[in-house]
Amino acid sequence: MEENHKTPQNVTVLGLGAMGSALAKAFLKAGHRTTVWNRSADKAVPLVEKGAVAAATVSEAVAASELVVICVLNYEILEKIVKPVADELQGKTLVSLTNDTPAKARQMASWAQAEGIDYLDGSVLVPVPEVGQPDALLLYSGPRHIFDKYFPVLRALGGKSTYLGEDPGHAALYDIAMMNIFYTSLTGVLHSYALLNAEGERAEEFLPFGRQVLALAGSFLENFAKSADKKHYPGDLDNITMEAAGIAHIVHASRDAGINVSIPEAVKGAFDRAVKAGFGANGMPGAIEGIRAPEKN
Amino acid sequence: MEENHKTPQNVTVLGLGAMGSALAKAFLKAGHRTTVWNRSADKAVPLVEKGAVAAATVSEAVAASELVVICVLNYEILEKIVKPVADELQGKTLVSLTNDTPAKARQMASWAQAEGIDYLDGSVLVPVPEVGQPDALLLYSGPRHIFDKYFPVLRALGGKSTYLGEDPGHAALYDIAMMNIFYTSLTGVLHSYALLNAEGERAEEFLPFGRQVLALAGSFLENFAKSADKKHYPGDLDNITMEAAGIAHIVHASRDAGINVSIPEAVKGAFDRAVKAGFGANGMPGAIEGIRAPEKN
Repeated sequence: MEENHKTPQNVTVLGLGAMGSALAKAFLKAGHRTTVWNRSADKAVPLVEKGAVAAATVSEAVAASELVVICVLNYEILEKIVKPVADELQGKTLVSLTNDTPAKARQMASWAQAEGIDYLDGSVLVPVPEVGQPDALLLYSGPRHIFDKYFPVLRALGGKSTYLGEDPGHAALYDIAMMNIFYTSLTGVLHSYALLNAEGERAEEFLPFGRQVLALAGSFLENFAKSADKKHYPGDLDNITMEAAGIAHIVHASRDAGINVSIPEAVKGAFDRAVKAGFGANGMPGAIEGIRAPEKN
Repeated sequence: MEENHKTPQNVTVLGLGAMGSALAKAFLKAGHRTTVWNRSADKAVPLVEKGAVAAATVSEAVAASELVVICVLNYEILEKIVKPVADELQGKTLVSLTNDTPAKARQMASWAQAEGIDYLDGSVLVPVPEVGQPDALLLYSGPRHIFDKYFPVLRALGGKSTYLGEDPGHAALYDIAMMNIFYTSLTGVLHSYALLNAEGERAEEFLPFGRQVLALAGSFLENFAKSADKKHYPGDLDNITMEAAGIAHIVHASRDAGINVSIPEAVKGAFDRAVKAGFGANGMPGAIEGIRAPEKN
């Protein structure tokens, strides 16, 4: 039955913040029988108008479906909602799309297993308006057979719904790794814009140069990944000692311009620690050796 | 005369480190009569084999050409080389391709002006092997007429030799702003790779996700530049307070994995300072307000 994935299923959504509401809307749009619950009931109103059933209590919401999706602010709130209904969740599938750390995801998975609840941990990697779109990326990890069983329903949330592996922390780990690249690179861009503005220059005029250098950085992702995995950082074309000296110019120029220097100082710190650890003659990916160890200096 | 830019000219290169030697080679390849000097004379040997004239002293090197290009490690070394020959440089053009801060470039330009020396400050934005290539980017700033006069010679160093403006610090500023984006984004990438490795995952497997999120970050460069210039950060789709909470997850997950947290902490610092300064309800580019002011917290 080719169209099997379009068979309407029962699904419950707990938590109707901006993201939870978007998830419920995407289920409704795909034709699933969607039950919703939120601590403050008013959030359910626009969803009921679209065909959702509003449950008065968490128990009632859980009773309505074999598949329960929860999206709240963090795992503390998540635990307060699901732990009291552990018995009612037994034998059902709980999918958390709550962003937090891999450790929190693994703790929740252990709890669920002990309670006899099938558990998948997932991350929504797109902003609210893109939920449900063919390009929307969602990552899942946990038992493969649970993902396979509910993929026909979960795919309503995004065309790029991807299973990563059995470790329940995997989705959160990739989410964190991606968020880190996103926020660090854009904060670096904002630092450069702040520097330009402080020197009386317009960031928009610099834009073609910013684009060019970010694309150049992107061209190194593959080689850096290989180097990181092998812990092998050939320094044929460059070396970390020279690069640390170059990054010092960024710190000095930022200080001269009267702006905050925390970002370039943190970058310089990684290079300096790598030099101190004996990687000074290695190539740039060797700066990872200044990050692998926890000590700050 | 269309081929005017190919007329051989006399040019002197002071400083024959890896970059200085590459500059001299590019001039020689373009057919210019190239005189070279280095503190340790042996560096001149491979260039003499390619047709360069080795000068025994800085004075002799300066006497050979109207255009003198200097590329050394920093401005301290640069000053030690050029200040003793100020009289001999009078009426000639000195071009520094020494990387340092905008302030240093401006100081050197003031000194040169007082001495009656025409001065251009430039930055080589490509690694050594790419000097002289059609795609090689070099930035120059200083008096327009000097750039125009020597562009036919300087273009031998790179097809993308670009004039930025009269402020002699402009090239160094763009250089610093570009280097900062390059190093910050790639150090962010290395942080994510270190986190993945610490959690037993291969960075290479994550590569498609890393590429995707860096490309996503790149798509925000233009809007962020406009926001920065206007100091206007609409928060319709996101807000800095929520983002700071997300970045805190990166710090926690990094700490859980036993790696260094300086990079995500510095990023979080910018967001936290922006919230503290009253920009919490603004969109992400408003985090620049946590960078514009010098105080660390």
